[in-house]
Amino acid sequence: MGENKDARVLIVGSVAYDTVETETGKVEMALGGAATYASVATSYYCRPSVVAVVGEDFKDEHVDFLEKRGVDLKGMQRKKGKTFHWAGRYLPDMIGRETLDTQLNVFEDFDPVLPDDYKGIDYVFLANIHPGLQKKVLDQVTGPKLIVCDTMNLWIDIAREELVELLPRVNVLVINDEEVRQLTGDFNVIRAARRLLADGVKTALIVKRGEHGSTLVTREGIGVAPAYPVDNLIDPTGAGDTFAGALIGYLAAMDDASLPSMKKSLIHGAAVASFTVEGFSLDRLRETTRADVDVRARELREIMITE
Amino acid sequence: MGENKDARVLIVGSVAYDTVETETGKVEMALGGAATYASVATSYYCRPSVVAVVGEDFKDEHVDFLEKRGVDLKGMQRKKGKTFHWAGRYLPDMIGRETLDTQLNVFEDFDPVLPDDYKGIDYVFLANIHPGLQKKVLDQVTGPKLIVCDTMNLWIDIAREELVELLPRVNVLVINDEEVRQLTGDFNVIRAARRLLADGVKTALIVKRGEHGSTLVTREGIGVAPAYPVDNLIDPTGAGDTFAGALIGYLAAMDDASLPSMKKSLIHGAAVASFTVEGFSLDRLRETTRADVDVRARELREIMITE
Repeated sequence: MGENKDARVLIVGSVAYDTVETETGKVEMALGGAATYASVATSYYCRPSVVAVVGEDFKDEHVDFLEKRGVDLKGMQRKKGKTFHWAGRYLPDMIGRETLDTQLNVFEDFDPVLPDDYKGIDYVFLANIHPGLQKKVLDQVTGPKLIVCDTMNLWIDIAREELVELLPRVNVLVINDEEVRQLTGDFNVIRAARRLLADGVKTALIVKRGEHGSTLVTREGIGVAPAYPVDNLIDPTGAGDTFAGALIGYLAAMDDASLPSMKKSLIHGAAVASFTVEGFSLDRLRETTRADVDVRARELREIMITE
Repeated sequence: MGENKDARVLIVGSVAYDTVETETGKVEMALGGAATYASVATSYYCRPSVVAVVGEDFKDEHVDFLEKRGVDLKGMQRKKGKTFHWAGRYLPDMIGRETLDTQLNVFEDFDPVLPDDYKGIDYVFLANIHPGLQKKVLDQVTGPKLIVCDTMNLWIDIAREELVELLPRVNVLVINDEEVRQLTGDFNVIRAARRLLADGVKTALIVKRGEHGSTLVTREGIGVAPAYPVDNLIDPTGAGDTFAGALIGYLAAMDDASLPSMKKSLIHGAAVASFTVEGFSLDRLRETTRADVDVRARELREIMITE
């Protein structure tokens, strides 16, 4: 079974301009947003179709960049006002971060309306946005094969009810270790993941653990994939989004959301994410080819210890 | 190549009575200490020979327990006074802990003297004690094949010089992620490990990451092993000691300290450590057989994702 490059993935989330500071430098108003990162990652495998909103200030060069990557922008609305802006600073550990500024701008009234030809897409990625908006998307799709959902600490804090209600409609919840603890109140990540499966997530939890890799937890068992050992970490922004984007891109291209396929997808997620963090914004991914990704995926498989 | 159950491992470290409190309960004056934990773990694979010191209060039942596990106690000195005592409390995350009391007692003047028939042992584990004492042991051995060394934040704080001087005499430094950061000042664990290799550790770093598993870093590449997913974590004490004890026990039993063998040893370390934390003190290991360990080692290999 080969990959079908024409397979489609529906991606809904933010498109943003980010101002990011890390120990290694700073970028201002750089292209960002969960849907942006995810769709570029998906584009290594197949065809992302994005639902998002941008303002009048969204640059032609960024439209061009995305379209050249094969990203379908039919569902990207352009509204009066400015594009969503986030500014933040990472702590020296490159894990903790503080938000310096958030300007929702056009994102404040975002109503994710799916173009008709998006509604039947079989692979859906609900990137990190308010669970109420994620629900709106699910109300428009017609029986996809796989729904992957991301979230963040903010929604667990302020929209927990809506998030919890959404979970039984989701096949795979992608979440980081801190968030799975926060959502369940359980320090043990595996137990917390199992609890979320018991509480409704249909198929699997994928816990992102940064430099520690990722863990797939299903009712049948667990799977572990390492992170690629990056020793030139420039900016962690977008790591999780590209991890998930590559993961669902691989599953869609294979048209196989079985457990073995899902396990393999973690490797692809790790490979693409490892490039993301080696530059600010999408800088490193711009110069990264699918062949580069495959080299790291192979190295990741070699890293794993088997007897 | 099979395992040689009669292979020997020299283990030097503390034997202690611990008072430990976790969210799940409390034990008082329970058998503990790095050398104790490590030697019991080694005993699943071959014959540990311990160098340690205990006081007059050290109980016969604990001597019996260790001897029944095949632990050679010829090098365990009994001195006037009380056995080393540590009391601590784990934070709810089961990672952070606070020391409530430390009474060095007979450990204060510990002089690790090797019985003659210990000196030629090929596999040496310097469990977590002052690097000055670890050095004294190395001055007595006659060309072992493999020296594995553990340490802790305390020695990095108060005996950094001596620890750093010891490293070029050590094949494998076993260290946790916080300690490797502390020792190098580098937040990136892989880069930190590589720096220690550049600075002198002969063969490999093995970074223990608790629930995230462990990572082997050599000049040739890295290897990653998951932790066994324990959902009944009772007491983390001794996890690292038993991880290292099982690891070197396996290497000695195979008489193979090659890179492929070292990679495999991480799985054995993870399997034994996973039982350790399912009870206070050595309670869970008392009832755990080698067959039990092998089941978990097999499960760990299945957890790893390969294509």
